[in-house]
Amino acid sequence: MAATVNPDLRKERENASFDPEKITNFLYGGPERVQKKRELASLALNDPDYHHEDLNFMSREQQYETFLKKSLLMTTKIKQLKIDAVDEHFYRSAVTGPSPDPLGLHVGMFLPTLYGQATQEQKDKWLKLAENYVIIGTYAQTEMGHGTFLRGLETTATFDPKTQEFILNTPTLTASKWWPGGLGKTSNYCVLMAQLYIHGKSYGPHPFMVQIRSLQDHKPLPGVTVGDIGPKFGYDVIDNGFLALSNVRIPRENMLMKHSKVAPDGTYVKPPSSKLAYGTMVFVRATIVNDSAMALAVATTIAIRYSCVRRQSEMKPGHPEPQVLDYVTQQYKLFPYLAAAYAFWLTGQTMMSVYMTSSSQISKGDISVLPELHALSAGLKALSSWVANMGMEECRLACGGHGYSHASGLPRLYANLTPGATYEGENTVMMLQTARYLMKSYNQSLQGEKLAGSVAYLSGVQPVPAAGRTRNMLDLGALCDAFRHRAARLVHEAAMQLRNERQAGKDQPDAWNAASVDLVKAAMAHSQYFVVKNFAERLTDSRLDSSISAVLTRLCQLHALHGLVTNSGDFLEDGYLTGTDVRQARRHINTLMAKLRPDAVALVDAFDFPDGILNSILGRYDGNVYQHLLEWAKASPLNKTDVHQSYHKYLKPFLEANRAKL
Amino acid sequence: MAATVNPDLRKERENASFDPEKITNFLYGGPERVQKKRELASLALNDPDYHHEDLNFMSREQQYETFLKKSLLMTTKIKQLKIDAVDEHFYRSAVTGPSPDPLGLHVGMFLPTLYGQATQEQKDKWLKLAENYVIIGTYAQTEMGHGTFLRGLETTATFDPKTQEFILNTPTLTASKWWPGGLGKTSNYCVLMAQLYIHGKSYGPHPFMVQIRSLQDHKPLPGVTVGDIGPKFGYDVIDNGFLALSNVRIPRENMLMKHSKVAPDGTYVKPPSSKLAYGTMVFVRATIVNDSAMALAVATTIAIRYSCVRRQSEMKPGHPEPQVLDYVTQQYKLFPYLAAAYAFWLTGQTMMSVYMTSSSQISKGDISVLPELHALSAGLKALSSWVANMGMEECRLACGGHGYSHASGLPRLYANLTPGATYEGENTVMMLQTARYLMKSYNQSLQGEKLAGSVAYLSGVQPVPAAGRTRNMLDLGALCDAFRHRAARLVHEAAMQLRNERQAGKDQPDAWNAASVDLVKAAMAHSQYFVVKNFAERLTDSRLDSSISAVLTRLCQLHALHGLVTNSGDFLEDGYLTGTDVRQARRHINTLMAKLRPDAVALVDAFDFPDGILNSILGRYDGNVYQHLLEWAKASPLNKTDVHQSYHKYLKPFLEANRAKL
Repeated sequence: MAATVNPDLRKERENASFDPEKITNFLYGGPERVQKKRELASLALNDPDYHHEDLNFMSREQQYETFLKKSLLMTTKIKQLKIDAVDEHFYRSAVTGPSPDPLGLHVGMFLPTLYGQATQEQKDKWLKLAENYVIIGTYAQTEMGHGTFLRGLETTATFDPKTQEFILNTPTLTASKWWPGGLGKTSNYCVLMAQLYIHGKSYGPHPFMVQIRSLQDHKPLPGVTVGDIGPKFGYDVIDNGFLALSNVRIPRENMLMKHSKVAPDGTYVKPPSSKLAYGTMVFVRATIVNDSAMALAVATTIAIRYSCVRRQSEMKPGHPEPQVLDYVTQQYKLFPYLAAAYAFWLTGQTMMSVYMTSSSQISKGDISVLPELHALSAGLKALSSWVANMGMEECRLACGGHGYSHASGLPRLYANLTPGATYEGENTVMMLQTARYLMKSYNQSLQGEKLAGSVAYLSGVQPVPAAGRTRNMLDLGALCDAFRHRAARLVHEAAMQLRNERQAGKDQPDAWNAASVDLVKAAMAHSQYFVVKNFAERLTDSRLDSSISAVLTRLCQLHALHGLVTNSGDFLEDGYLTGTDVRQARRHINTLMAKLRPDAVALVDAFDFPDGILNSILGRYDGNVYQHLLEWAKASPLNKTDVHQSYHKYLKPFLEANRAKL
Repeated sequence: MAATVNPDLRKERENASFDPEKITNFLYGGPERVQKKRELASLALNDPDYHHEDLNFMSREQQYETFLKKSLLMTTKIKQLKIDAVDEHFYRSAVTGPSPDPLGLHVGMFLPTLYGQATQEQKDKWLKLAENYVIIGTYAQTEMGHGTFLRGLETTATFDPKTQEFILNTPTLTASKWWPGGLGKTSNYCVLMAQLYIHGKSYGPHPFMVQIRSLQDHKPLPGVTVGDIGPKFGYDVIDNGFLALSNVRIPRENMLMKHSKVAPDGTYVKPPSSKLAYGTMVFVRATIVNDSAMALAVATTIAIRYSCVRRQSEMKPGHPEPQVLDYVTQQYKLFPYLAAAYAFWLTGQTMMSVYMTSSSQISKGDISVLPELHALSAGLKALSSWVANMGMEECRLACGGHGYSHASGLPRLYANLTPGATYEGENTVMMLQTARYLMKSYNQSLQGEKLAGSVAYLSGVQPVPAAGRTRNMLDLGALCDAFRHRAARLVHEAAMQLRNERQAGKDQPDAWNAASVDLVKAAMAHSQYFVVKNFAERLTDSRLDSSISAVLTRLCQLHALHGLVTNSGDFLEDGYLTGTDVRQARRHINTLMAKLRPDAVALVDAFDFPDGILNSILGRYDGNVYQHLLEWAKASPLNKTDVHQSYHKYLKPFLEANRAKL
């Protein structure tokens, strides 16, 4: 039985100014990729082996079990189906939906660490086992007491030359490994980050290959205490774990020695560069920018479709209730995040391609590009995950009461995606890393050095206001100029602030701390400038179909203008923009939103998420929201019986006692 | 065994500039009230009958059962202990903590509706039963298809003069009642809001007393379909329900007829004023302002205490890791929300006292004050719940990874409190109601009328910039002036925008919609001005102890200055403030934060939340965070066995098959 599409949604799709398929092709890199993505997604979504009850109806234990089963099955099927490594993520994301994967750290961190940090001998020993899932591993870095600050790790690996072993210990409570995914119940191995000690001297954190559970019966090995860290906001399907080690001995050969080495006599060989680990970090952060784009794309798809199905209130007496999306306030909530989803989608692509290009340079030993890449990726990771956090919640709230139901998919999306602001470097720390690079570059430019890359604009820019000009606030060039000016000015202001604090007698660390709010502000402005500029540049691609370049330009304008009016003080403070400019910008936003309104559904359809991935009754492609809300509710555990058992246990005696007393 | 307090927290408390007890007394209305609060809280918290496993370890069904049991017990004990009605909430909030109460709608809506809208005869019939919990009721207003827009309700109550009955029906799917708390499984009665039809004519929504479940066996009565709406973001302990009625007949006397009446012959008698229902709404919204203050107070208590216990990173080489709260960026995340908690706490008190004062006027028939109260409360409800939403999440994120664990208490707090932005009037709709009153008042003032109350400042204000002045940006008078000017200007701008849209040919509803973003902005500025002014006024109380007025003044300054710099464009746009003023404001914020830093723990201690109410391992009064994190994790369900059953079911066969293939 073909489902009938809600007439309001059908009309939206008929009235769009462009064919969403063209934007889908643009977003995924061409029709062949889209074809492949769809093939693999339907393969996964139509496979009955993956079907199960709604996660929202399960206890956390059941959720863990269900997803473990699913993940193991997926692993086996990917091999059986011989899915290409390049395409694998299309299949994976369709199997798991917006939930994380219990084997995610095996695939995403354990294996890559072996690839990147094991010697050939070590690879020969472990890779085959790990790639074929004879052993399952995770990456145990974060401790109860230390996260982003790696040097603070307390776990120790002490070299014992007599036995040619490292002795692993968790010397304090706070040294317990805490958070690694899959550590609690699933993994039997891990890469352990521990402070290396040789002959009483500390050499900083290094990676060690450690078996934690028996391969026979999965019991923790002697000296190993391991378990689940308990329920969290989201990630219910994942056994984030803790791990404490007591005099656990591993052979010397278990230290991953591709970069640093410890010789049998205890001689320590330094890595050729301390920045080599940066490469992976840049990659992971680019992934988080992609995740943020995806989170916003999913959230706006749900909220915009539902806002076309939902009719509410009376705009004009006697008229039918309008679609909620016809309210300008609703557009103002959703369209800026729709634009941000596109902006970050393109940012993530650029970051990945810059990373790929520079990877070959790095592998040839040229690491000159790394500090720049590192600084840029830190700021973009922080910016995108912050905006995604706000956007997901704005979308949920824009769906009113039903957004609060797990039927909307939005609470679970938020709970699963919000850690992006914390993991792989806490966002404020990330912004301060970007700021450090900006300050360094700014000072170099003051000393006459010519800057390159993303900070080139700091060279020779005099942050003086150019008042009196009239601007076309829709011109992307003018908007990029405004964001560049703001970034340059705020970098300058932060540098001045830093200097003032120094001159007032503070030492460098205290001055840095005192200026840190300004420094974060500068790094934020720098990152936003990059995103706006990147969006505008992607639109100059001559291969872009004219029917979609018009609508994408509107999104880009909206993204820039919304950033401008929500931070208008930054542009007004030195008179770069005038009050008239800002008022103009607000009027343009209204006009742009009116123009985007008829294309809104097509713009989210273009993200091409099947219902099985959206996991949302409100966001269903067919818009048949209300009947499915009721069906879903009826299936929920509390409705298994008309009269719940709690009546007999508690309510009945209570009511009867009260009646008797009357 | 007396628990040792974490030495960092102990030192914080020793170094505070004031005795937190004095602020506690200020916040709760004197030492007697504080004494009473503490007595009742410990009575509840020390009662072993209320103890149970951590809700985070339970399935949703278990949570519902646990809290139902707890709520029934609490109801019985409140009677047994003869707790005074004025003090009851101290006891209740200690029993439930930050979770809602399964009988909350019986107490908070069902009973008050009977008090307010039932005739004396009806009260005689039902009140005794309801007050003594022989019947349990809820308030069924919201439907699947309609929430804030009351007139859109679809449930019908059709008068049948022949039988002297109303026939209740749910004519469409979207007419199903949806969301009422306690409706799904617990209640056997409800007040049903339904469209009244007499002789084919509609008279709008009216309240009806309806029995939905049998008092014998709790089964739904004939014609009644009722159940739970399924799991949500939060509110796991509550059976928010759906209800559909099919030709359910109730006697004519079941319409609550204190205001509107239907005579036996079907004659309809109108209520004396359509605004009478406003009174309750004002009260409920004031409650939400209080809830928002409470949410921020709880969240900042947790985050600030934890930020003093947590030490991280290296500020200066060789120095010990600093307390996280010593980072200025951390202060900038938390202190503005600490200030907001105080600001809204005082706002809620003022609203309650204004409501109480005007209630007596209203009960004497003078309802002139209602539109003003209604408009003010709508904006303050929206502002406070929005800020609370942002603040709770900012606090969670400021606790890093551990904030994401349910051990922090913050995810559950957020999930349970965020509905305040949606229920009792969706926030944007609320702001637009405030804006409607502002536009009306503004137009009256243009016509020479003198305005009173919260909008008096719109009279005769000429929103012209007063450039060139130098201001002391720490002066509370100057800050209030700035907020007043901004509000007046934005009201003026919105009015101009509305006029322009009309002049461009739009009809009134379209013009209103087109200007709605500006209208919300104006209403927001108006509400913020009220909060800042109220805070400043409360500080002029001559009874205020001088040792606490200094620190409260700092909080008030910070609240105002933070609002100013985060909305600096609004103050700069017309030149009211200069770039220098704004820069000055930022410097003052830094100075204020440095001064507040040593008092931060005392300022949250002053909220006086016992650990049993905070429900947070990170926020524990004794600061013994890490050992309790581990204990809590070990107690969680996945750790019942070292090797989880899923190993035997899924992991073992998977690993063995992989090994065999190798």
